[in-house]
Amino acid sequence: MKAPTRVTLAEIAAEAGVSLATMSKVLNGRADVAAGTRARLEEHLARHGYTRRRVSQRTDILELVFHELESSWSMEVIEGVEEVAHAAGLSVVLTVSGDRHSPAPEWIDGVLRRRPTGVVLVFSDIAAPHRDKLRSRGIPFVIVDPAGDPSPEVPSVGSANWSGGLMATRHLIELGHRRIAAITGPEDMMCSLARVDGYRSAMNAAGLPIDPTWIRFGDFHPGGGEAHGRDLLALPDPPTAIFAGSDLQALGVIAAGTAAGLSVPSDLSVVGYDDIALARWMSPQLTTVHQPLKRMGEEATRLVLRLADGAEVETLRMDLATHLVVRGSTARHLG
Amino acid sequence: MKAPTRVTLAEIAAEAGVSLATMSKVLNGRADVAAGTRARLEEHLARHGYTRRRVSQRTDILELVFHELESSWSMEVIEGVEEVAHAAGLSVVLTVSGDRHSPAPEWIDGVLRRRPTGVVLVFSDIAAPHRDKLRSRGIPFVIVDPAGDPSPEVPSVGSANWSGGLMATRHLIELGHRRIAAITGPEDMMCSLARVDGYRSAMNAAGLPIDPTWIRFGDFHPGGGEAHGRDLLALPDPPTAIFAGSDLQALGVIAAGTAAGLSVPSDLSVVGYDDIALARWMSPQLTTVHQPLKRMGEEATRLVLRLADGAEVETLRMDLATHLVVRGSTARHLG
Repeated sequence: MKAPTRVTLAEIAAEAGVSLATMSKVLNGRADVAAGTRARLEEHLARHGYTRRRVSQRTDILELVFHELESSWSMEVIEGVEEVAHAAGLSVVLTVSGDRHSPAPEWIDGVLRRRPTGVVLVFSDIAAPHRDKLRSRGIPFVIVDPAGDPSPEVPSVGSANWSGGLMATRHLIELGHRRIAAITGPEDMMCSLARVDGYRSAMNAAGLPIDPTWIRFGDFHPGGGEAHGRDLLALPDPPTAIFAGSDLQALGVIAAGTAAGLSVPSDLSVVGYDDIALARWMSPQLTTVHQPLKRMGEEATRLVLRLADGAEVETLRMDLATHLVVRGSTARHLG
Repeated sequence: MKAPTRVTLAEIAAEAGVSLATMSKVLNGRADVAAGTRARLEEHLARHGYTRRRVSQRTDILELVFHELESSWSMEVIEGVEEVAHAAGLSVVLTVSGDRHSPAPEWIDGVLRRRPTGVVLVFSDIAAPHRDKLRSRGIPFVIVDPAGDPSPEVPSVGSANWSGGLMATRHLIELGHRRIAAITGPEDMMCSLARVDGYRSAMNAAGLPIDPTWIRFGDFHPGGGEAHGRDLLALPDPPTAIFAGSDLQALGVIAAGTAAGLSVPSDLSVVGYDDIALARWMSPQLTTVHQPLKRMGEEATRLVLRLADGAEVETLRMDLATHLVVRGSTARHLG
């Protein structure tokens, strides 16, 4: 992100055969340049790897982008981002993109117009052309818990998903469970894959076989947890414990268990993921993997502010620790 | 909000003995005017009831202000605001004020600098001097579920709290309960008072006495519900049903019941308030009063946009309907 600027904007404008004024308009996301011209000039900027030097015209805005705003974890991340941004004198602009693979094209135009100090994307990804546009304007960005597998130079703050999956599964094994299923998030999200791999490692280390039908990909919502839970409990030889991909999913699994006449935790053990604020208020209180969602928001914001200040940043990617919180939804397997 | 401008800014500047440039700086929230001068010039503006005409320099920002960002209901209001703002091409700036009586003084300076199209305040109030400052800049505002009792000209979107309290209590009475307690929010919030009055009316209409110890003011969080629930259940002649002020509070009440060895709903009926997305995923599924939180956010945003457009608005205050959703946390009282 810190390749020195070799070519000036005026030189690129001359090469492209347009005025410096037109080039500036494109850089500032102004609408009064024809779409075809803009696309062509963006190519020139990207080819030269043009990066605007940090200038005082930067506004006191931080962009925060979610692909959906649904669950309790969004709120905890927002809290962390807002606190750090507020302390730094920045206002938070909140956008919901509706697509976890990359925000919509009109989003990037808005960002270029607003000229934020930085961008924090949550549980999302960012397409390469958008990345190039932000870079050429000198707008740094950080991804919280990247959805895909971004290239190594993309700054990100995540959490130890693999360890989380390992700890949750090991806890169930220690309670005497042998038939343990795992429900997780979408198959194209890194966090889902890492958690399931942690689950696999714990099972393998204990010498326990994994029936392929025990591993389920889905979404992180209660309805998905309920549907997968129902299917798992209807198997001829159903699991006695289920590791869910989120606390919300765990609620759905518990509902499926109740509907099947099972009592949690005496007949079925359930581990959640996230440790949202409500986890300890559910009945039974949820055993879950604590993910430091608020701190992830805080660290991502601190990182983007350091990048905006042009500070030397040694580590562009970090994973915060997770830990298991044992409560009332898991119990010893008898039988 | 639509008194025609009689005095020009230049005339007010002349009267105050400053240049038009200085006056403009104050109006635009610029920091390079001494605090004493700014305060004096604000007084001149307020005295003349100066209102800036709507001008094209307005930015595409909508300010959304919460006093706290904690619970599931905040997220639903944010969703509603974001959707309507996004459709209108506006970005949402999210601020957490930390004080439900009025955002901090530095907040208003930021708003004047950002020149938003409008301001939506949630579960909050706004001090009269802040109100005057927004008016003199022609920035409209709407309060979602006002905390205090704002004067009639303050635009607001609420919900039918009194009916909500009435319906919840009537439901418990119809189930045969006679000793019914009510836990609600802070005593200085209108919504808390209205819900308790609905409770009182239902009890009175049924000819049921109310023990003064049965009415509890508190916060809307699970911990408060648990503490009040514990106290109520420790009474010599405890209530058989509790109407809680929020779904989160209801979770706390259920936890207190469980700790006291009571089963919900067979030994204790509990009604929540809000109908957050998780209410139907709790066990037991929560009987609750549905408050259209997302729609309240939408309507408030539509109203502020109409005011910003200078449209004729007949109704500056509206309350959206609430309704009772009967699920599994309430049952017939036997005994």
